[in-house]
Amino acid sequence: MARVLTPRAEDFPRWYQDLIAKAQLADNGPVRGTMVIRPAGYSIWERMQAEMDARIKIAGAENAYFPLFIPESYLKREAQHVEGFSPELAVVTHGGGKQLSEPVVVRPTSETVIGEFMAKWVDSYRDLPLLLNQWANVVRWELRPRIFLRTSEFLWQEGHTAHATEEDARSYARKILHEVYEDFMVGVLGIPVVVGRKTNRERFAGATSTYTLEGMMGDGKALQMGTSHELGQNFAKAFDISYSAASGGVEHAWTTSWGTSTRMIGGLIMSHGDDNGLRVPPRLAPIQAYVMVVKDGDGVTAAAHKLRDALRDAGVRVGLDDRVDTAFGRRAVDAELKGYPVRIEVGPRDLAAGNAVVARRYDGSKTPVPVADVVGRVLAVLEEDQQRLHDEALAFRESHTVEVSNLADAIAATATGWARVPWSAIGVDGEAQANGQGVTVRCLVRADGSVPGSQEEPELVAILGRSY
Amino acid sequence: MARVLTPRAEDFPRWYQDLIAKAQLADNGPVRGTMVIRPAGYSIWERMQAEMDARIKIAGAENAYFPLFIPESYLKREAQHVEGFSPELAVVTHGGGKQLSEPVVVRPTSETVIGEFMAKWVDSYRDLPLLLNQWANVVRWELRPRIFLRTSEFLWQEGHTAHATEEDARSYARKILHEVYEDFMVGVLGIPVVVGRKTNRERFAGATSTYTLEGMMGDGKALQMGTSHELGQNFAKAFDISYSAASGGVEHAWTTSWGTSTRMIGGLIMSHGDDNGLRVPPRLAPIQAYVMVVKDGDGVTAAAHKLRDALRDAGVRVGLDDRVDTAFGRRAVDAELKGYPVRIEVGPRDLAAGNAVVARRYDGSKTPVPVADVVGRVLAVLEEDQQRLHDEALAFRESHTVEVSNLADAIAATATGWARVPWSAIGVDGEAQANGQGVTVRCLVRADGSVPGSQEEPELVAILGRSY
Repeated sequence: MARVLTPRAEDFPRWYQDLIAKAQLADNGPVRGTMVIRPAGYSIWERMQAEMDARIKIAGAENAYFPLFIPESYLKREAQHVEGFSPELAVVTHGGGKQLSEPVVVRPTSETVIGEFMAKWVDSYRDLPLLLNQWANVVRWELRPRIFLRTSEFLWQEGHTAHATEEDARSYARKILHEVYEDFMVGVLGIPVVVGRKTNRERFAGATSTYTLEGMMGDGKALQMGTSHELGQNFAKAFDISYSAASGGVEHAWTTSWGTSTRMIGGLIMSHGDDNGLRVPPRLAPIQAYVMVVKDGDGVTAAAHKLRDALRDAGVRVGLDDRVDTAFGRRAVDAELKGYPVRIEVGPRDLAAGNAVVARRYDGSKTPVPVADVVGRVLAVLEEDQQRLHDEALAFRESHTVEVSNLADAIAATATGWARVPWSAIGVDGEAQANGQGVTVRCLVRADGSVPGSQEEPELVAILGRSY
Repeated sequence: MARVLTPRAEDFPRWYQDLIAKAQLADNGPVRGTMVIRPAGYSIWERMQAEMDARIKIAGAENAYFPLFIPESYLKREAQHVEGFSPELAVVTHGGGKQLSEPVVVRPTSETVIGEFMAKWVDSYRDLPLLLNQWANVVRWELRPRIFLRTSEFLWQEGHTAHATEEDARSYARKILHEVYEDFMVGVLGIPVVVGRKTNRERFAGATSTYTLEGMMGDGKALQMGTSHELGQNFAKAFDISYSAASGGVEHAWTTSWGTSTRMIGGLIMSHGDDNGLRVPPRLAPIQAYVMVVKDGDGVTAAAHKLRDALRDAGVRVGLDDRVDTAFGRRAVDAELKGYPVRIEVGPRDLAAGNAVVARRYDGSKTPVPVADVVGRVLAVLEEDQQRLHDEALAFRESHTVEVSNLADAIAATATGWARVPWSAIGVDGEAQANGQGVTVRCLVRADGSVPGSQEEPELVAILGRSY
């Protein structure tokens, strides 16, 4: 087969760009740093949304929608927040043909405007917790844009909640971290994320605790796949989100925020893609099984339609390719690029023998299967390959992570993967030194893998890596 | 029951604002003309999206996402288009702390940027038709904003398609009009829209034909609920969307665009709302049946939970209110405001007699029903009241529409509703005159109710009204 993509080993960033272009996932937009998400890419995002949205609703949050435009003055009310976001803002100065009296910023995130409305809606402890989420676009001006990973506009969900107590806020931020994000990323995306705590240096602008999920990409770098923040009372004080307590008296609420974005599509590509294209885990895949007519003749197309219908009836998300006027080889290359988990190739010769060929995207294997057994075989493959993709990514992560005991070794190890090093051997000074060499502490975890409550806990492990 | 809303007959616009505030559907945003869609309102939008999106996919269009920011120069390429939208643009002049070399506009609609990419993606006749849709926010600076109806930012879907021939483009614009929009609005929203053609004067900026769906609101005014446009080759020429034809030679494509927005929520409120609040048609309702614990005692809460589960198992979208620490009267008023189609009130006295009370939002009737029969009764009521809401709106429209033969009578009739008048008795001069008095030709229809191919056809009927 002719080479379709630049091989990963040759030039990983080029492979990434090639794959996105050739699988028709996205294009660069006309304004620097923006992107066009094409149907093949957007259908993956729709599946991510559906899976995430269901989990968010189970966690009790309700969807709402807040405005794109935020008065510039709102951003300034929380000191760290404005400092963090100012360099990335897009500013609207003219509306309806006139100069605006106060410029408005295009939301980079919505803590401020949602804080303003939480303050209006929360009156008594009975109104808490207030659990909101929105699916929206946000804008952060990017100097070094990279499609899906860092774009000036991206799509995301941002959750924002207010609670009566710090304990309740903490517990909810962690519930989202584990029950929504980790569950989705491990169980559906098949990406064995490490869940940990950001150092104070890497914390979200305005947060008191930032929790993160870090995935290892195919080149050994780290991608922050999602974050969940405790905001303490910082925004509650800045926007006066207060409530009358059951015990009497007026208290400030405790808030959280948490987000995941179209960046996850980049993580999916770089976790599971191979030199032939994308590999989409079956549970995520918009098209799980792709029935292809190799060439027409002797009832082939009719048989393919029957298989399509049978798979659909069995609950499989199925696509059909009967474009026999295009060469089969070209269509097969395209199906590999797009990463459909299973292809069912129906051609005259196999069909004459009562078979169709089941091709697994996971390992490229092809097996003739009696037509009557195809549905059962496909169901089994979808189940197996979901697990195999996850396990392969986990094995890769483990083989590209080393345990070291000092900063120099940790930094050296990030040339090919991650380093695990005692946080006490690094500390905030070592962290700053690593940053100077392009290496970051991706997160802190406890020795047992659980998520620390602060960076001052004893015996924490720091995970260092280079990142996107 | 105490008066909750300003009655419609007293002050319709005030009633509308009251309802939106008290049913907690939406708030005004901090930047003039923007809105915050609260969970009760957003859940309605999610149901609209789900129903519409399924129909759009059946019509063959695929979802994609194009950037929020459009270079100002793009807007200028289609002369009528820029003229139509210039007064409404929001302009970003600063990004990342610097003045931009070319200002970018926040999309008011996406014909231009999508045209640019269609030109890249379309090469041969095999690439056509290209059928795209996106769910997105758009911005049109509004001088007289009104929540849901005219807001500076709103949410919508915008479809954009390219075709090889004018006939194919026309047929697709009409397919969307009838099979997606009319089917949804009549069948799910229960709003008996009139489907017709806009006059040349009312056409979309850059279109050759604009088709519209007009609903009559509870005050007799018209609301444009959605539009579908043939764009001819205007955008194809401006953006060079061309293809090599099967017969050889290079041709410009023919394009369409079509959209519906959160404005439909305003239409829903003003079509079906009454003096007690919203009435949501059952097929649309996020919560179709609302099980309420009147007060606790003697297994009431357990019985309510069982009913909730039984309804859910029967496929009903069900909510449960067991907040017995809040007065039942207040909760019932709130349920009426939010417009849940059926309430099932479970209290100790009725339950002792083996009953629950089924309350229909459509007409306020309440009937004790044996607990074992509740599910069946609810299913029947949901079916009936979907139809009854539609029929009531249709009867209202018919009783508020008069047939007249001249412009003066038509304008007079728009004080209370719509006028149907021969288009030949008005013409473009009469249309301009009507506009001067705040009256517009909402659409042109044929005598048999079908949609005209041009405003020059003989024997067309013009429908005149005042509009939102």
